[in-house]
Amino acid sequence: MELLMILAPVAALVALGYALFVALSVKKAGEGTDRMKSIAASIRRGASAYLKRQYKTVGIFFAVVFVVLIVLAFGFGLVNKFTPFAFLTGGILSGLSGFIGMNIAVSANVRTANAAEKSLNSGLRIAFRAGSVMGFVVVGLGLVDFSLWYFITTYAFKMSPEAVTNAMITFGLGASSMALFARVGGGIFTKAADVGADLVGKVEAGIPEDDPRNPAVIADNVGDNVGDVAGMGADLYESYVGSLLSAAALGYAALGNILGIVIPVGIAAIGIFASLIGTLFVRTGEKLSSKSLLKALRRGTYIASAISALGSLAFILLVDIDHYFLFFAMLIGLVAGVAIGFFTEYFTSDNYRPTKNLAKSTQTGSATEIISGLSLGMLSTVLPVLIVAATIIVSFLVCGGTVEDPKMGLFGIGIAAVGMLSTLGITLATDAYGPIADNAGGIAQMSDMPEYVRERTDALDALGNTTAATGKGFAIGSAALTALALLSSFINLVDSETLNLSIMNPAVLIGLFIGCMLPFLFSALTMSAIGKSAESVVLEVRRQFRDMPGLLDGTVDPDYHTCVDLCTKSSLKQMILPSIITVCAPILVGLLLGISGVAGMLLGSTSTGFMLAIMMSNSGGAWDNAKKYIENGNFEGKGSQNHKAAVVGDTVGDPFKDTSGPSINILIKLLSIVSIVFASVIAAFPSIF
Amino acid sequence: MELLMILAPVAALVALGYALFVALSVKKAGEGTDRMKSIAASIRRGASAYLKRQYKTVGIFFAVVFVVLIVLAFGFGLVNKFTPFAFLTGGILSGLSGFIGMNIAVSANVRTANAAEKSLNSGLRIAFRAGSVMGFVVVGLGLVDFSLWYFITTYAFKMSPEAVTNAMITFGLGASSMALFARVGGGIFTKAADVGADLVGKVEAGIPEDDPRNPAVIADNVGDNVGDVAGMGADLYESYVGSLLSAAALGYAALGNILGIVIPVGIAAIGIFASLIGTLFVRTGEKLSSKSLLKALRRGTYIASAISALGSLAFILLVDIDHYFLFFAMLIGLVAGVAIGFFTEYFTSDNYRPTKNLAKSTQTGSATEIISGLSLGMLSTVLPVLIVAATIIVSFLVCGGTVEDPKMGLFGIGIAAVGMLSTLGITLATDAYGPIADNAGGIAQMSDMPEYVRERTDALDALGNTTAATGKGFAIGSAALTALALLSSFINLVDSETLNLSIMNPAVLIGLFIGCMLPFLFSALTMSAIGKSAESVVLEVRRQFRDMPGLLDGTVDPDYHTCVDLCTKSSLKQMILPSIITVCAPILVGLLLGISGVAGMLLGSTSTGFMLAIMMSNSGGAWDNAKKYIENGNFEGKGSQNHKAAVVGDTVGDPFKDTSGPSINILIKLLSIVSIVFASVIAAFPSIF
Repeated sequence: MELLMILAPVAALVALGYALFVALSVKKAGEGTDRMKSIAASIRRGASAYLKRQYKTVGIFFAVVFVVLIVLAFGFGLVNKFTPFAFLTGGILSGLSGFIGMNIAVSANVRTANAAEKSLNSGLRIAFRAGSVMGFVVVGLGLVDFSLWYFITTYAFKMSPEAVTNAMITFGLGASSMALFARVGGGIFTKAADVGADLVGKVEAGIPEDDPRNPAVIADNVGDNVGDVAGMGADLYESYVGSLLSAAALGYAALGNILGIVIPVGIAAIGIFASLIGTLFVRTGEKLSSKSLLKALRRGTYIASAISALGSLAFILLVDIDHYFLFFAMLIGLVAGVAIGFFTEYFTSDNYRPTKNLAKSTQTGSATEIISGLSLGMLSTVLPVLIVAATIIVSFLVCGGTVEDPKMGLFGIGIAAVGMLSTLGITLATDAYGPIADNAGGIAQMSDMPEYVRERTDALDALGNTTAATGKGFAIGSAALTALALLSSFINLVDSETLNLSIMNPAVLIGLFIGCMLPFLFSALTMSAIGKSAESVVLEVRRQFRDMPGLLDGTVDPDYHTCVDLCTKSSLKQMILPSIITVCAPILVGLLLGISGVAGMLLGSTSTGFMLAIMMSNSGGAWDNAKKYIENGNFEGKGSQNHKAAVVGDTVGDPFKDTSGPSINILIKLLSIVSIVFASVIAAFPSIF
Repeated sequence: MELLMILAPVAALVALGYALFVALSVKKAGEGTDRMKSIAASIRRGASAYLKRQYKTVGIFFAVVFVVLIVLAFGFGLVNKFTPFAFLTGGILSGLSGFIGMNIAVSANVRTANAAEKSLNSGLRIAFRAGSVMGFVVVGLGLVDFSLWYFITTYAFKMSPEAVTNAMITFGLGASSMALFARVGGGIFTKAADVGADLVGKVEAGIPEDDPRNPAVIADNVGDNVGDVAGMGADLYESYVGSLLSAAALGYAALGNILGIVIPVGIAAIGIFASLIGTLFVRTGEKLSSKSLLKALRRGTYIASAISALGSLAFILLVDIDHYFLFFAMLIGLVAGVAIGFFTEYFTSDNYRPTKNLAKSTQTGSATEIISGLSLGMLSTVLPVLIVAATIIVSFLVCGGTVEDPKMGLFGIGIAAVGMLSTLGITLATDAYGPIADNAGGIAQMSDMPEYVRERTDALDALGNTTAATGKGFAIGSAALTALALLSSFINLVDSETLNLSIMNPAVLIGLFIGCMLPFLFSALTMSAIGKSAESVVLEVRRQFRDMPGLLDGTVDPDYHTCVDLCTKSSLKQMILPSIITVCAPILVGLLLGISGVAGMLLGSTSTGFMLAIMMSNSGGAWDNAKKYIENGNFEGKGSQNHKAAVVGDTVGDPFKDTSGPSINILIKLLSIVSIVFASVIAAFPSIF
């Protein structure tokens, strides 16, 4: 049985090998004219500059935490002695996957634009294949990290499986911390640049979007890459590794043997093969409409899901026919992920009634559109909650969990989380496709490519909006399930016998209230961070328009670099406070209220964070698409009063959907993992109850 | 000791007698010119028409629920046999207090306008005294309801105190149901009328606010009374009765003797006397600025609080010196109420930085102001949560509650809730003052009173905005504490020994997720209800402007009645769905997940509802005051682009602060009380876990 653990590194190598192969083939495609090359180079330089500075900031953070962990581990024995080192590998591998994913994305955008000149399909293929590099690097490196520590602790240190799983559950801290910087920092960067570029360029100077005369335009394009590609990748890397680690820990606790680890790892490995096969089916005939392009992407995802389910069924029957029911937990998780994605699309795509009605509400002005959009976002929380609830119920009960002896049931929930994320390779490919297509459109605009090319990149971009919305739904759904699995692991880890986790325990109650408040506080901080960062961009763009006379005529090139630099500095500075709060909250609550209080806090932040993240993402997505719907000629079209109202909605939605909403995913997972790592520290102090 | 229960009816009579005395003295004041009388009569007619129709709808609802309760009580024995009748008295008395409060409010508005012609202070006195009628009627009738059933069950039916408290805890259902209609229905009415009047009158026809040519202007004024006076009154009536009932039940469970009932009742009675004395101190010298007016109101509240605290201390030492520490629980509750009110003011008043900064953010347009306002509202949840957390911790620990034996601690929480609400008489007076002053301003405008009168009514109105904001903070704070006390009573009521309330029980977990979702769903529904109702008003106002040619010249009077009628019908129709969801949710969750699931749901809805209500109320209040701040000449003043941006924010904030936010108070309390009433029904069915 132990031999089956070899599946993890094998699948990792397959994923990385495939990613390398695809990356090389993308790089071979042509980059187009010199103008295009020069713009692409600016974006690439900006993105690299951001990443470099981000890694420097992250480096300081990692160094401090590493020292703290070393002291706690070797000085006080309060933290597992592998944790400090696993913290580093997690951070490095997560950072590496972001680095690779973003590099291929900034290489692919110009190639997508160039390929779109040939045909719509060539453009789609380049963008999707580049996205799949990101997808497979994330799952590949995630499994590398997992395998590395599994084999080191098991074979080099001869630790028991129980000790291995309990130690490894703390190993997600590195990936989580990196995700915080990538998702939150990148999110602030991208929206500060976007808002700054729009406010001065579009509104004040009256030049179109993506106009090369706008000094912030490159920063805006860089933002798409650092926020939407690297941020999304780090977010899901964390979910992937977190769900795997917690499922393994819950599995060993439930089954009492190595099968509890082998089964989740097997499901993950099979998911990689399934995703790989799925991507091969994403091919398109000539001259497809945007709708049938979506179908092509969906076909790939559905095929991957089917193969993943059948493969997992076969695998489970093969290794442990007595626990055949674990398959149903995996299946419900997989289906739940797809279902949440679908309902996200329903609420945010202009093919359906909610967004059409939202566009209609612009007829009575921007205020009513804002109210309708907020109301839409709130309403859209209902189905995802019911889906998650059903997933928990089914995966818990089907695995034989009872209130008295929940261990098997909790393992079921862990397996559901792994099932949901099993096809991450292809799901993430579809997500990362979006910003690449978006950037390709920007490059086409800036390099004055023919009208028909821009129409094609617009079509690709529109498809990207849909996949971005479903991707966000999937990201928050998987984050919630992962956080719940981590919460179960946390409680398993501490001495759960003596723990009073009743909701009538005031420690739990107060912890829960504080937990519910954290997503609100976090969102407030990320939203005001964007405002502050955007302000500095606005001032800089105004300065350039004022001080560089030839700029608006196009005779002088703007100073792109300064804007990129400003966004970089400002976003990294603005994310310090939310980061500190996230890392310190579990420790402070723990010192005050003890382990029970922390458990309450985790549940509160996960549940409320889930609602708030869905609401913000969906309101934002719907506002964006309502604006596009009007721009496509509905409700009096572009330039009308209705359109102006829709632009206000879209601007409000930007930080909602691209920064604050998705950042909550990180918040809830990081709170869980910090609690797990510092559990012994918290338990070492007396609480007030 | 039992004799002390006589305090309840005595205090009730004092409160009602004082209310009657003040009401008569207000009625004696002059109504001014014929024009003023005619406008006031229109408002009064509209308000009566609304109330009549509301009571008809409520009547149907009450009849249905009464029959259901009768069947459950006498057919199946699943509900206490007094509950159906107590349901009726609760509904009738709550309705009666709304009726009286609203009647005096619509009598006082024109008299306030008229008195303001004499002096600012005369205006203030009329408005405040009319508000205090509402305050004392609410506490008086609340204690009448309590006493009535206490004496009937104890003396006519010779029930044991334990049976009495357990039966009476279900008696809040009538008040809760009435509050639902008053707060939600009234909230939808007031904002539909407001938005309808503004959109066509101010924006399309270009006539000023409160212009008598606007057909929806009377509906708008009626709305202030049915929403802000009757709705707020019913909301706090429910909190008052609910906190008293649950404290009595928790008290008997903790102390095991009648003192557990006597102490909360005594605190409430002393609070009435304290409030009465406090109101006598609300007197003002001549020519006071708006800021010192606020000081005058505050002086009354602070004096009442001090007397209430000292009186309660004396009372507790007198009747039960062994449990002297209950005083500290009462005190922390009282202080917490004042503190939440203060921080609400900090975040929403333009005397402080947050709202000033919000006004500044209009310089970059309405979108940034919306983002800043939402961010402000989210940030403003932090302190109230910490205050509530501190209140729970202190009141629990100081009374000797432990995790193993929480009974005394839970009683402490109940006492804190009673303490917070003990000075409701004067707090509510300050709240009800606001809409009266607002209406007085409207009447002054419509009846073309001299400029200086309008300036005075504007000053009174500005003060009203502050008190309205603090009132909302107080209402949600007390609702959360009451809901928590009700939750404790609920768990005490059911067989808590066999109950697994651990957060790792999936029933609790899923219940909690669903509970967190309910405030979002409820807010989405109330916000879209306003949109739909407002639309019908918009169409009607447009029709009148079109079909009645002399309207805009002022030669033809508009048809006010049709607009009032439309708002009435539409608001009552639109509130059906949210009401059904609120009543059915605990029963459905209970049938699926059992008592543990319901407990989780209550905690989830209370915690998330608390955040969402504060966020919505404070964002809305801040937007409103940011607009007023600009209108007072800051940031380029009225008519500027900044002002236009602020108007958008204010319009978004209207449903936030006056409908959806406050309605959540009702949601969380009603969910608790429905759960309590139907606990036996839920327990009679097997759940899936």
